Amino acid sequence: MSTETPLLLVLDLVGTFTFALNGALTALRAERLDIVGVVTLGMFTGLGGGTIRDVLLDALPPATFVDWHYLALAAAGGLVAFVVGARLDRLNLAITVFDAVGLSVFAVLGAYKALDLGFGVVQAVIVGTITAVGGGTIRDVMIGRIPVVLRSELYAIPALMGAGCAAALYSFGYHGTLAALGAAAVCFVIRMVGVRFDLHAPQPPGQRDRA
Amino acid sequence: MSTETPLLLVLDLVGTFTFALNGALTALRAERLDIVGVVTLGMFTGLGGGTIRDVLLDALPPATFVDWHYLALAAAGGLVAFVVGARLDRLNLAITVFDAVGLSVFAVLGAYKALDLGFGVVQAVIVGTITAVGGGTIRDVMIGRIPVVLRSELYAIPALMGAGCAAALYSFGYHGTLAALGAAAVCFVIRMVGVRFDLHAPQPPGQRDRA
Amino acid sequence: MSTETPLLLVLDLVGTFTFALNGALTALRAERLDIVGVVTLGMFTGLGGGTIRDVLLDALPPATFVDWHYLALAAAGGLVAFVVGARLDRLNLAITVFDAVGLSVFAVLGAYKALDLGFGVVQAVIVGTITAVGGGTIRDVMIGRIPVVLRSELYAIPALMGAGCAAALYSFGYHGTLAALGAAAVCFVIRMVGVRFDLHAPQPPGQRDRA
Repeated sequence: MSTETPLLLVLDLVGTFTFALNGALTALRAERLDIVGVVTLGMFTGLGGGTIRDVLLDALPPATFVDWHYLALAAAGGLVAFVVGARLDRLNLAITVFDAVGLSVFAVLGAYKALDLGFGVVQAVIVGTITAVGGGTIRDVMIGRIPVVLRSELYAIPALMGAGCAAALYSFGYHGTLAALGAAAVCFVIRMVGVRFDLHAPQPPGQRDRA
Repeated sequence: MSTETPLLLVLDLVGTFTFALNGALTALRAERLDIVGVVTLGMFTGLGGGTIRDVLLDALPPATFVDWHYLALAAAGGLVAFVVGARLDRLNLAITVFDAVGLSVFAVLGAYKALDLGFGVVQAVIVGTITAVGGGTIRDVMIGRIPVVLRSELYAIPALMGAGCAAALYSFGYHGTLAALGAAAVCFVIRMVGVRFDLHAPQPPGQRDRA
Repeated sequence: MSTETPLLLVLDLVGTFTFALNGALTALRAERLDIVGVVTLGMFTGLGGGTIRDVLLDALPPATFVDWHYLALAAAGGLVAFVVGARLDRLNLAITVFDAVGLSVFAVLGAYKALDLGFGVVQAVIVGTITAVGGGTIRDVMIGRIPVVLRSELYAIPALMGAGCAAALYSFGYHGTLAALGAAAVCFVIRMVGVRFDLHAPQPPGQRDRA
């Protein structure tokens, strides 16, 4: 499996922790929750995308569930958010950067897993994107928010681009650490440029006038 | 597989496209979304029912995901809704009719798939109904609406009737194109009669007074 | 399978019916629904936890779906709630007690199923808890409420304790009816003490001031 290189594995674990931390913080700010809610929503954010990925790829039981490293890191991210929640506000930039790292790594590794299992390029791009944005989407639905990814910002589109680059490189035979990092960098750069310049995906024609 | 006749396959693809188109239009009218949201919700509406079906039937990876025709048609339905959204208002009747076609075909083919895989009649009826109404339900939950199918109209009941007729005919040995079309027609007619005369499923006793 | 003893099987079926009844009543009070909505949400509450369990454990098709006893009892619970809804108010205590029975049995049997299938203790505890609280969570999300389990009360924590005791006893070789009843009793007692004294899971530090 191309995903087994140590560097990518570490980034995958970092992504899981950061997604859980960030997901729990977001939930904490939006809604009145108890410790069960904060930790649960953190775990859903960190593990949800990979779980949907493994359902779609018929790779059950989900890797995110079988491997206790993922469970532990996701729970730890949620617990950290619960304990030091408000005080993490000054780390907003760091959290945004790590979240973008998670987004990039999940998109690329999701696409790789699909291709490793023999799925086509289209399926790999879809699964990569879902791996990257699925967890946050589940969290938003559970706290009754329209998922951010459906409304604004550049969040799914960088993931789609990263998964697309990964799948394209893979189908030309490049799926080592370097190719993975290159594809992840595409996602990361688009995401951070989007954050920096407050870019948004296109709205439906005429929508702006109605709001 | 009984679902492989060309006519049923074409109707299944038509249903996927129409569900996606209609689902994306509904989402577009209810909420402020960007292109990612409109296309995603269209794809969920078109593909969601079949995906739940294949989870319940242990037929993963889902047919809706493996076969790119479904992915492409669902994405196309969402994109058409995004681009020409407002202008489709004058086609409301046509969209309602095609949506009823999708409902009918999904209910019958969902039931057939369960029976083909050796499940019982009860399971087939449930799976047929879920295939037909599942996509729209997911869409509504994602945009924070109580799913229409749980509140009013005749939508799940025609699907249940269609799936029931299909399963009954199948268990008597009739599962050719003609039997499928007959069962689908039962669903279609009940649905259209419900739309025409604004019929609703029964409310709980005493509920009317409280509202 | 350790879950096959007649007493546990009966309790599992009782839990399914009570969860469906209680879930449908909760939905009925919160939202304007028709018969499809009440019965559907009852069935989701009664069967949802077990379905997620079987997805995570790669035990598809879900036992809750294949075995018509579960389907019938869940549908019956929803129908009873629909028909006699308001008049069940005076049975609130009985319903709370039976709901706690369901919670306890689902937590223990969920953990057992994971261990029977060779999963680890951590996975068993998580799956037991999800089996117990998953159905009600899905119902709440579908009617647009933040799931109670994420916000307040002691509901997930007793389930976690019960599943934890079951998994601990199991790993020491005790997994007969007696051990199961003991672990279930732990969950049941904590839940009922929580109801009686209105206990809640801890809130995030500083959260109280903001509300």
